[in-house]
Amino acid sequence: MSEKLDDDATKILMLMSHRGFIWGPSPEIYNPVKGSYEFGPLGKLMKTNLENYIRKKFRKFQFWEVQCPLIGSDMIWKASGHAERFFDYIVQCCNPKCQHVHRADTLLESLGYNLLNFSLEGFQKIIDENNIVCPDCEGKLGKVTTQNLMVTSQLGFPAKEFILRPETATTTYLLFPRLYQYFRTKLPILVFQMGYAFRNEISPRKMLLRTREFEQCEGQIFITPEQEMDFKLHSLYKEEKIPLLSASQQIAGNDKVEFFSLQEAIDKKVLQKPAYAWLLYLAYDMVKGLEIPEENIRLRQHKNDEKAHYAHDAWDLEINSKIYGWTEVCGIHDRGDYDLGRHFKFSKKKQLQVPGPNKGEKIIPHILEIAFGLGRLFFFCLEQAFSFEEERNVLDLPIQITPIPFAVFPLMKKPEELSKVALEIYQQLIDNDISAIYDETGSIGKRYRRTEEVGVRYAFTIDHQTLDDNTLTIRSIEDMSQKRISQAELVSIASRLLRGTITYDEIEDLAVES
Amino acid sequence: MSEKLDDDATKILMLMSHRGFIWGPSPEIYNPVKGSYEFGPLGKLMKTNLENYIRKKFRKFQFWEVQCPLIGSDMIWKASGHAERFFDYIVQCCNPKCQHVHRADTLLESLGYNLLNFSLEGFQKIIDENNIVCPDCEGKLGKVTTQNLMVTSQLGFPAKEFILRPETATTTYLLFPRLYQYFRTKLPILVFQMGYAFRNEISPRKMLLRTREFEQCEGQIFITPEQEMDFKLHSLYKEEKIPLLSASQQIAGNDKVEFFSLQEAIDKKVLQKPAYAWLLYLAYDMVKGLEIPEENIRLRQHKNDEKAHYAHDAWDLEINSKIYGWTEVCGIHDRGDYDLGRHFKFSKKKQLQVPGPNKGEKIIPHILEIAFGLGRLFFFCLEQAFSFEEERNVLDLPIQITPIPFAVFPLMKKPEELSKVALEIYQQLIDNDISAIYDETGSIGKRYRRTEEVGVRYAFTIDHQTLDDNTLTIRSIEDMSQKRISQAELVSIASRLLRGTITYDEIEDLAVES
Repeated sequence: MSEKLDDDATKILMLMSHRGFIWGPSPEIYNPVKGSYEFGPLGKLMKTNLENYIRKKFRKFQFWEVQCPLIGSDMIWKASGHAERFFDYIVQCCNPKCQHVHRADTLLESLGYNLLNFSLEGFQKIIDENNIVCPDCEGKLGKVTTQNLMVTSQLGFPAKEFILRPETATTTYLLFPRLYQYFRTKLPILVFQMGYAFRNEISPRKMLLRTREFEQCEGQIFITPEQEMDFKLHSLYKEEKIPLLSASQQIAGNDKVEFFSLQEAIDKKVLQKPAYAWLLYLAYDMVKGLEIPEENIRLRQHKNDEKAHYAHDAWDLEINSKIYGWTEVCGIHDRGDYDLGRHFKFSKKKQLQVPGPNKGEKIIPHILEIAFGLGRLFFFCLEQAFSFEEERNVLDLPIQITPIPFAVFPLMKKPEELSKVALEIYQQLIDNDISAIYDETGSIGKRYRRTEEVGVRYAFTIDHQTLDDNTLTIRSIEDMSQKRISQAELVSIASRLLRGTITYDEIEDLAVES
Repeated sequence: MSEKLDDDATKILMLMSHRGFIWGPSPEIYNPVKGSYEFGPLGKLMKTNLENYIRKKFRKFQFWEVQCPLIGSDMIWKASGHAERFFDYIVQCCNPKCQHVHRADTLLESLGYNLLNFSLEGFQKIIDENNIVCPDCEGKLGKVTTQNLMVTSQLGFPAKEFILRPETATTTYLLFPRLYQYFRTKLPILVFQMGYAFRNEISPRKMLLRTREFEQCEGQIFITPEQEMDFKLHSLYKEEKIPLLSASQQIAGNDKVEFFSLQEAIDKKVLQKPAYAWLLYLAYDMVKGLEIPEENIRLRQHKNDEKAHYAHDAWDLEINSKIYGWTEVCGIHDRGDYDLGRHFKFSKKKQLQVPGPNKGEKIIPHILEIAFGLGRLFFFCLEQAFSFEEERNVLDLPIQITPIPFAVFPLMKKPEELSKVALEIYQQLIDNDISAIYDETGSIGKRYRRTEEVGVRYAFTIDHQTLDDNTLTIRSIEDMSQKRISQAELVSIASRLLRGTITYDEIEDLAVES
């Protein structure tokens, strides 16, 4: 299962580790576990910033956050349908010395077979007709079977089997009766949850892209059928454009993305529900705001054979990875009343129903869902930000998520006053919750070089003029241009740059004036 | 195992749930799992704020954060000593209809026995000599045995047993070779990790205080023996006082806390190592900053029979809970070279050693540890903040962690300009990442009442004068006093109140001036 990577890809993965973003597979000092990684000091800072960025976006649209347990009883996952339908097709090598278990679809795809539909019989037929053998040892393959992907765990005395949740979404659905009361029995209710999920992947691979423990961020809109067709946020954002690749286009063999405004997408019947269309926009806006280049983002509709049987519609937001090509980073699902309907059936709780449009009528609310893979989003933001120019390795992360956005330098070590003032300025930033590094070692050129390698966006330099007139320079690491600003404005400028309420170009250059 | 609670305690627990802080046991619509809880919309906001507060404190002292996997191989936990020593004493009822499993120490303590030392033979002797029976059914009890508390899980094909980590700390220790290189082979290294841990508690109880999945925040200092005795942060904070209850005092039957400065504690040999003394201060400062009343905090030293065999010294920071009495919320441990020594022995990795003081010598670094239970800290902050005055239920949370610190009100619904300006001001706060609620429903008095129930600290009211001169009132919910401020100053005042760089008393009252 080794992955063939080109030189740049290898360099990117090496730099991620070398610079303290991602370490592993973990634990490195013992026999490591496949698909198990650590976030180092810079990786963790960036990940926390990314989480805050996502929180801020969700909160802006009045989504409320909840947190639910990781471990639950099997009853939940019977009701959700996971016990029955959450599986992969696998096939094991019969050679007693090998016994490797392969995912049937991955195996056949890697051999160049075009899998038109996913079924046990379909896979078995391809293997039989083409005499396919184990790629590891050329041994005979056994029969194709299914393997549930849920991770089990034991708790209590005597031990009972529990399930580590395979997704966050279901645990949010279970809160519906509470949320409905808390929000004074008014729909729609917008809510999200960020947290761990677990899947017993047959073969963990592609770094953070397919691991057995991972983090998700899933948002839900609990909504009535009427509200899906008449949704305020859609009206507010109806002129916004999103890049769509519909199922019918894909079937026609056309892979060209087309931009539609939310209104056009509804008018031309590419999308059916305004509320759902807005959710596609939310996914796009979230990723776009992280400075992923526009040409590397697309929204791709599921074809009928990809779609869950209950899904009314389903699109993936995909990013064109420098290393792994087009990959899903977010799924947007129109789930109808499937989920609360199942839980109503299994729990018999009337609180899962709400009043319908007709007098005395009770209905099951619908769910529209937006589901991000947090590790994937983190990984893509990081890999897209690397660029290599001759001797320079630049890390061009957006200011909102870069681990340390600012650096403070005294121009030289002497006179001591330069360091003293620089340290005061550094402390001023820290006291105002603005992340910064202080560096006085080596030439100023080398220090700029070091900071551009770890994603610093702006450097403040304290020079002799600072001691005279309380001004200092701000240098944009991106293009190395510089301006003079007053020390009194420093904290305000830094925090406005961080929040995006001012751009570098808008900063007044005192040097030009004087 | 029902817990007897007084009226106020019951009211507090009910309000925590009613106001969307903590829901459960989860899942409420099915058969709930013991000790399994959800954080509702306000609870999650508060928890995120608490996590940010802790991060900020750690970062202030140059601790760097990391994140490690939850699931690991059993090798890690053999090396750490957990496979061998991480157990509780249990005793099961022999009545085939009951078969309840009891924790031996909890059972005997609840029956009033004074447990001087914890041993299998000791517990067995008390049970035998006193003919103790099952408290549930009066059945005969079986033999006392030990039960390892680690939670197991199965992964891979064919399935292999893995461990859900029982603490975060060990996963941080395993990073030592990486951290040592990343920080350019210089000690001390200060690092922390916030995340889940899992323990198969015999009887989950006391709400968030004893659950099977929980969150910790554990900080480590990797340090040499010389540095433990000469530690810069100790010198900087040596005049700070901390409330100590030493082991010898406890043995003498004296439960009175004494305040020592960090320097006095060393001079009087209550504490041996300056670096460790500073870590006790860090624990105290962290909790003190959350406005837990001083008289409800103490640092209590472990007596010899409580201490792990390898621990050089161990203290608990305890909070006097309104509901459950004195309870550990943080452990501060002088672990010596035990941990890295064990991992050196099991992994044989030379990178776990560092140069010693003598030429050519190699030593194993020491570890000083500070370990918070995040759920406990959250729970105590919340329960301490409730107070009941006649008809009023006040929630007096510190501004840094309260879910929504600010409210914006138009004085009345009419004229419409009031609402319009109020909504603009609300949006201005939101755009500047300042959490606020907007409320125009009901009388202004009722709105103040509603906000004080959910922890709002300050309310901005837009009145007729606002329309004339762009001033508005800020009201402190704590004492209901009010001042006039200019609308232009609003964002600056709110964010400085949040960061603690200004107090309400320091705000200039424009009404007084005019």
